[in-house]
Amino acid sequence: MTVVRVEEKVLNENQRIALDLRRRFEEHNILCLNFISAPGSGKTTLLESTLAVFPPGEKIAVLTGDLQTENDARRLMRYSFPVQQIVTGGVCHLDGKMIDRALQPWPLENIDVLFIENVGNLVCPSSYDLGEEAKIVLLSVTEGEDKPLKYPSIFHKAALLILTKIDLLPYVPFDIEAAKANARQVNPDIEILEVSCSTGKGMDEWRAWLAERRAKRQGAVSAPRGGAEKRN
Amino acid sequence: MTVVRVEEKVLNENQRIALDLRRRFEEHNILCLNFISAPGSGKTTLLESTLAVFPPGEKIAVLTGDLQTENDARRLMRYSFPVQQIVTGGVCHLDGKMIDRALQPWPLENIDVLFIENVGNLVCPSSYDLGEEAKIVLLSVTEGEDKPLKYPSIFHKAALLILTKIDLLPYVPFDIEAAKANARQVNPDIEILEVSCSTGKGMDEWRAWLAERRAKRQGAVSAPRGGAEKRN
Repeated sequence: MTVVRVEEKVLNENQRIALDLRRRFEEHNILCLNFISAPGSGKTTLLESTLAVFPPGEKIAVLTGDLQTENDARRLMRYSFPVQQIVTGGVCHLDGKMIDRALQPWPLENIDVLFIENVGNLVCPSSYDLGEEAKIVLLSVTEGEDKPLKYPSIFHKAALLILTKIDLLPYVPFDIEAAKANARQVNPDIEILEVSCSTGKGMDEWRAWLAERRAKRQGAVSAPRGGAEKRN
Repeated sequence: MTVVRVEEKVLNENQRIALDLRRRFEEHNILCLNFISAPGSGKTTLLESTLAVFPPGEKIAVLTGDLQTENDARRLMRYSFPVQQIVTGGVCHLDGKMIDRALQPWPLENIDVLFIENVGNLVCPSSYDLGEEAKIVLLSVTEGEDKPLKYPSIFHKAALLILTKIDLLPYVPFDIEAAKANARQVNPDIEILEVSCSTGKGMDEWRAWLAERRAKRQGAVSAPRGGAEKRN
């Protein structure tokens, strides 16, 4: 019983910080997306392909979490947008406090889109709100189509499921329609995209999703407040 | 600080149960192996291929953990050995208490080899001793060769690394020698096998590893105790 109580207290503390982060993201008109998946599903590769086509000067920033190593930050820094590695030192998820601390050196007015790449873990990160506008869950076709049923929490909370590595479909026993049906069983409203960063298939649809969310975020904040549009 | 203290207390409680499990496994001459990997690395498929070639009547038993669903147990039950699903209901790892409870209906004298398939998670299960003789970590070639550096705890604690899905090597950018070097950097004593359950490649070596461990377990217990050999 003690454990449960303390866990609740930690989550509540996190919730308080996440609310504050969300308020600041809204105030600065930032689209914040929290990418969650198992290790090796392709979060870093998707972010590489995403950053590669943004024109220099776009206000994009990336926070990337891992238990150890700065490998992912090194990969993502090549695209000349600000990137920061959060090394959790063994902790199995990112939490609000880590995001808050990492953002301190960055003026928020210089960010339009903040990508957060969570620790590779399909379980624990789903319990920690980071103030993001949406969670995005990645599932690679080399895993298994029943993952949404086995790890329902993240599929339930995610706005978007990206099925990755679809170029490998001919070589693996993965029933993509069953995977989609399982995801929709857990979350009827989940949006679904299929991408391959190797062949580029589906990347246009992913970029369109992102552009739409970005436009909505800017519209959502500016409209009700009577035209406080963000300068680019 | 409170959180850390409670976590330590939980781990110590788990340690106490794990010691008791280990004592019982030794007393009954049981080889217990704890399989850990990310979701979708192929634990269930490896166990299916492993069970498929054991002669009926062998004293094999399987415990398989998941947050939700009994899918894995259903897959593994087809081989006519006793299988039990442990549904953790959202908990990100198996712990000693779950194993102890699951074993209650099974007379330990009917078990020679106990396979435990942990929850798909490369982080949290590594902190929970289940009384096993060895942890086995699986890494599929569709993940990334830097995983041992990013998730060092489990690679440090595992006796054996099984690189799975090697039939997919021609289609993925996975440097298998770098993966091995990274694993040995974290754990110089780790043994490494390469397998494909689709083609069967490497399965003989895996079965030989298992047979050797099994023989050692029976020898280790019977020799010092003066011939208390286990009946088959």
